[in-house]
Formats: sequence, structure tokens, C-alpha cells
Amino acid sequence: MKYWLLPDGINESLPAEAKALEAMRRELLDVYRGWGYGFVMPPLVEYLESLSIAMGSQLDVQTFKITDQTNGRLMGVRADITPQVARIDSHRMSQLPNQPNRLCYMGTVLRTKSEEAGGSRSPIQVGAELFGHEGIESDFEVISLMLETLKVADVEKVLIDLGHIGILRSLIASVGLDTDQQAAYLDQLERKSIPEVDQWVSESGFDKSATDMLCCLPTLHGDVSVLETAKVKLSAAGSDMADAIEYLQTLINRLQSTFPSLAISLDLADMRGYAYHTGIVYAAYVEGSGREVARGGRYDGIGEHFGNARPATGFSTNLRTLVRLKGDVAPLAIEGILAPFEGDAELSSKVAELRSQGEIVISQLAPLDQLTVKEQGCSRILAKQSGEWQVVTA
Amino acid sequence: MKYWLLPDGINESLPAEAKALEAMRRELLDVYRGWGYGFVMPPLVEYLESLSIAMGSQLDVQTFKITDQTNGRLMGVRADITPQVARIDSHRMSQLPNQPNRLCYMGTVLRTKSEEAGGSRSPIQVGAELFGHEGIESDFEVISLMLETLKVADVEKVLIDLGHIGILRSLIASVGLDTDQQAAYLDQLERKSIPEVDQWVSESGFDKSATDMLCCLPTLHGDVSVLETAKVKLSAAGSDMADAIEYLQTLINRLQSTFPSLAISLDLADMRGYAYHTGIVYAAYVEGSGREVARGGRYDGIGEHFGNARPATGFSTNLRTLVRLKGDVAPLAIEGILAPFEGDAELSSKVAELRSQGEIVISQLAPLDQLTVKEQGCSRILAKQSGEWQVVTA
Repeated sequence: MKYWLLPDGINESLPAEAKALEAMRRELLDVYRGWGYGFVMPPLVEYLESLSIAMGSQLDVQTFKITDQTNGRLMGVRADITPQVARIDSHRMSQLPNQPNRLCYMGTVLRTKSEEAGGSRSPIQVGAELFGHEGIESDFEVISLMLETLKVADVEKVLIDLGHIGILRSLIASVGLDTDQQAAYLDQLERKSIPEVDQWVSESGFDKSATDMLCCLPTLHGDVSVLETAKVKLSAAGSDMADAIEYLQTLINRLQSTFPSLAISLDLADMRGYAYHTGIVYAAYVEGSGREVARGGRYDGIGEHFGNARPATGFSTNLRTLVRLKGDVAPLAIEGILAPFEGDAELSSKVAELRSQGEIVISQLAPLDQLTVKEQGCSRILAKQSGEWQVVTA
Repeated sequence: MKYWLLPDGINESLPAEAKALEAMRRELLDVYRGWGYGFVMPPLVEYLESLSIAMGSQLDVQTFKITDQTNGRLMGVRADITPQVARIDSHRMSQLPNQPNRLCYMGTVLRTKSEEAGGSRSPIQVGAELFGHEGIESDFEVISLMLETLKVADVEKVLIDLGHIGILRSLIASVGLDTDQQAAYLDQLERKSIPEVDQWVSESGFDKSATDMLCCLPTLHGDVSVLETAKVKLSAAGSDMADAIEYLQTLINRLQSTFPSLAISLDLADMRGYAYHTGIVYAAYVEGSGREVARGGRYDGIGEHFGNARPATGFSTNLRTLVRLKGDVAPLAIEGILAPFEGDAELSSKVAELRSQGEIVISQLAPLDQLTVKEQGCSRILAKQSGEWQVVTA
């Protein structure tokens, strides 16, 4: 039995990495504060219903369950902080109905399975949510803050892959898919299986217009020109479809003019978070990494489960990913000052003064014939010279 | 079903409290860094054996269990970070045998039951551990750092209640209690039931010397003079006993000369953490609060479960308790600067500049006929005057 083995995908950080994580934590929370986002700390566990009611079955599968011994009820260890923050906006903070509320969070979540082989099951989720405002402005603000977050990790070259859940929803509504048909179609889209879609659509006896649109949707990914194609090919789906396409176009124009170096791609069949997203959805990618590094979207109405439906838009990422992207985990420098354990009152005040100046002062526990100054983590010593305590190179 | 209800003893923090918690987190971690303590971030969950092997059954009862679906093994959500840090020192950091290693930590733990009625089951445990050194110096350093921690919370008047597990151990050894007798005696001590001890001792047929010592121990609490009494009344227990009493005396002398305002009491029958503590044990109290606010002690040998036994001494407390003691959770000030959503390039750079100066700049999403400047969290606005963007009182 190797008691020091950690479960797969469960991370821990030793001093060098923990220092980098803490530094980036502070930098990000300071940035979010500057943008007006209040920091909240939702709990590690909640009653299971509170965690999963708003987010659908996918999150439920990802959630570790424990029993509250005080009342026998099931609790879950949070697998996602987003629904917790929505609960806080909805229930615990009193707002005017249309008053924007900006919240940010940072904390470890736990998942039963990692999202990819060998991946983490205990990311440090960090993100920001903007409640109470519907429209381009808040979506734009949150995406801007996501890009600012990546900038803190020294990532400047970002690709954002955009979609809009309204496109899929309005297509389904206009074609009139029943529940079984919806499930089949969504399943095929999720697997991005165009041949299956084509076969299923041709066998299902839709009319020509519906057939064309259902078959076209999964092909609508690529650069921004996809929007023009969509406008033409999905025009029969009605005004909700046109509005969603228009919304994307307006948002993209604004993003392009504000962030000229931002690469933008589109995936109109993107159905990430179909259960709870209501508007735009997106994922951010960086060069040299095939996996998304941040994601977000609009999820109006999530708060209704907690008694107060409010528009909501937000993004999240993983602090560990950001630190890895920044690549600044360096071995800790040996830079302490070794101070004698016993001394006079002047020694104590000199030590306190040095520490308050940001120096590391280490009390000497082991005699120097047993451990060198360096082995005690120090490059300098505190010694009394000419009646005064002075820092001397070792 | 009230989806917004939290389980009993599970805390969450809204912006005002979270701000105070974050500020104290930073201050403490900076203090620990200055004392040479490296920050580590042990994981939220580990295999159950790793968490509980070193700490005995009490911790196991406090630990929520979950099953790792990837291999069916039991994991525990940490109820105490101490054994995790010992594992890190023992296994993950390579040290010379007698090289001191100073580590600190800060993180949420989860407990099946709170330690007192209505108490928290999700404290933010913060503490420091010093490994690799045996003796007064390291115990003194760790106690000093605990007092420094309380000072950060503006607590200056502290009572420390000291004990030494060696006293109980050497008494048990010298009297020769068998396993059942040990269990009975420890149980009575834990309940501080002097009449029961007296009755049990008189019925058990010990000789006069053993009877006297076993009955005397639970009365040995009070001020520092208790040590003199112990020296006389427990002298028959031999040299280990004398060493433990002497150790306490030396430590107390040093504490009194360094911290003249520190109140010190003794409880020689203190058996907190008898399963793993090996030397001094202590709890810190503050005026006006009957409950301990921090605790600590020596637990040499904990690392042997992880392959490398090292002397260890440390303390821990709860960040939430410290923030409560400091009492500085104030409502957040309305101090933002409201900036127009649309603007020119100068606006963007002015906003970035203000934020980098520590200002909160909020992008205006709601028109002023719907929400006032104040309702948008601001006391000032950013307006273009004489061709320049300027901060103007609202």
C-alpha cells in the first residue's frame, strides 16, 4: 500500500507551483475587482438538487455524492461553480430587476471523470458572471474579460470559436421536431456525424425546406463567412433564426474592431450546454494547444430554479491551465536571510523589519556544522557587526 | 423544495466577507513566506487510507467518503490538511535527514459533523508545519508564528493552554497500564471526570505510588505553578516524566520572556490528539470567546506512514474565525467609476489606466434613466470634457 499515491487526475501543488498559482490568483482577482466584479466564495458542497437542478444531467454525472449524516439528504461536491453563483445572484443578493450584478469566483471543483484522458478531475475553476443584463453589451464585456484573463497568462494569440444556441433552438422549433426527433438530432450533432444526419433526415420524411436546413446546419462551421451562408440557407426558419444570426454578426463586428488580432471561427451547430445555454456559446483556444482553455456563454433563466430568473452571461477557465500557459513555474530561489535563534531585542526588531520589507528571514535551528546556510534556504546571514545587526552575504 | 438552502454548517461568502477573507489570506501567506514557510496546496480528496492512516479513528469519523469510479477505491474529502502536509514533507520533497522544512497551507476542509453545536463543517483551515527539527526551538517558532497569525487578526490578548503528551505517556508506561486500563483511563480523562478516575483507580488495586499519580494527573491544570506540583507528585514516574515537565518549563520561560503579555495556563492531563501527538500540545484562546481559536502541537513520526519519519510541529486555525475576530467585514463601498460602453480608443486606454491604478471602472450597460450611477455601483463617471476623458463626481 503506497499511502503517498494520489488518485488519477487529482492535483496538488508544491511550493514552486503553489507560488505561481497564488500570484496569478491575486492578479486575476485584482483585475476582476477593477472591472467591478465582486468576489464570492460559494461552498464546496451543497444539496445535490441545488447543484444540478439548473445544469442538467451532464453535470449530475460529474458530481460526487455524499450523504449529510445530520439529515440523510444527498449532497454533492461541486463540479461547476457557475450554478452556485447563479443561486447567489438570484437568491442572496437583492437587486433591482434590471440592475447588473457582476460576480467572480475562484475555487477547486471536483469531477468524477476528467473531460479528456489523463486530464484533471480537480481543476481550480475561475470565472466571472454578469447577471441582469440582456444583450450584446454584457456578452461583449464578459468575452473581453475572458481575453483579459488570458492576457494575464501572457496569452495574446487567441482563437474564439463562437456559436449561438438560438440557431439550433429556432431550427428545431420551425421544423417542429418532436421529443424523440430532437434527441436523435442532438445526439448526431454532438457526435458531429454528418452522414448519420443525412441518412436520418432522408428517412424521416421531412419536407424539402426542413430537410435542407437540418442537413445544412452541421456543415456551418468555419470562418466568419459561414454567417452569410447561414443567412441564405436557414432563412426559412423564421425571425428567431435571423435574430440569432444577426446577433452573432453584430458581436463579431464589435470583437473584430476592438481586438484586431483575435481569430474568430464559428460553429453554428455547437450544442455545448444545450440544456441551459440560451444565447451565444464560445470556447477559447490558444496556439499549440488543441484543447479549449476557457469557455462561456449566455444562460438566461438559470436563476428561475432559485426563485428569480435573471439574464446571465459568463465565462470560466482553470487557474492551473493559465499558470501552465504562462509557463512561469520556476524553482524557488534560495534567497533567505539566516538569523540566530537566540538574540537580543534588537535582533527581534531587525528580523521583523526585514520581513515587513518582503525579505524571508529564517530562524537558525540547525548549527552550521550540521547544515550550511544554503541548506537552510538562505543566501545571507544576519550578524552583529560593530554593535549592529546587519545582513551579510554568506 | 428550497433550492437555495445550504446544509447546516456549510459556509459561503458574499462579496463583503469574501473581500475580507481574501485580504487576510494574502496577509497571512505573505507573513508565512517572510518566516520561510513554503506554501503548498494539497488536494481536496485523497485515498482514504492516506488521509486517516496517520491521524487515528477520530479523523476517519469526520471524513466524508466517496468512491473513485475509475477503480472503485474509497477516497475521502479532507477533514484536516495536516496529514496531507506531512505526506508532502515525507514523500514529495527531498530533504537531508535533519534539514528543517517549513510549509504552510490554506484551504477548505469538510467535516461530517461540526465540533460544536451550530458550528462550521467547512472551515478554511490555515496553518504552518515545521518538519525535521526536534526540540524547543521549532516548537517555540511555531507558537510564535501562531501568535503572529492572531496578531494579523488584531488579537493581541491571547491565552495559551499548554500540555505535553509525554506526561500522560510516561505515566501510563511507568504504572504499566494494560490496553483495557489505558482505554478506561483515557476515556475518563477525556471527560475530565475526576470522581470516576478516583473510583476506578481505587477499585483497580494499584500500589500507593501509582494510585497517587493516576489520581493526581487530572487535577494538574491551572497556572504555571502546576509544574512545581507535578515535579513533586509525579516524580516516581521516572526520567521521561521529568524530561517532559522540564521541557514545558523551558518553553514557558522562553515564551514569557518573549511575549510578556501572553497568558499561559497548563493542563497536564490534556489528551487532545493522543493518537498522534508526541510532545507539547496547545490551544489558543482569546478574551470573550470560550472556544479555542487555534491549536497545535508536536507530532513526530507521522511521516513514517508515508515512508520517512521526521520530527514535526505545527499549528492550525480557521481563516473564517480570524476574520470574525478582526471584525472588519464592512459593507462594500460604492466607489466605482461609470464609463460609457461605446467610446473611442482614448476611452479604452483611460479605462485601462484607471484600473491599473486600482480603481474600479464599470462599463455602463443600463441607461441612466433606468438606473442611477449609484445603482450601477459607482460614485463617479468618466466623461469627455474639453476633449479629454476625465473622472467627474456624479
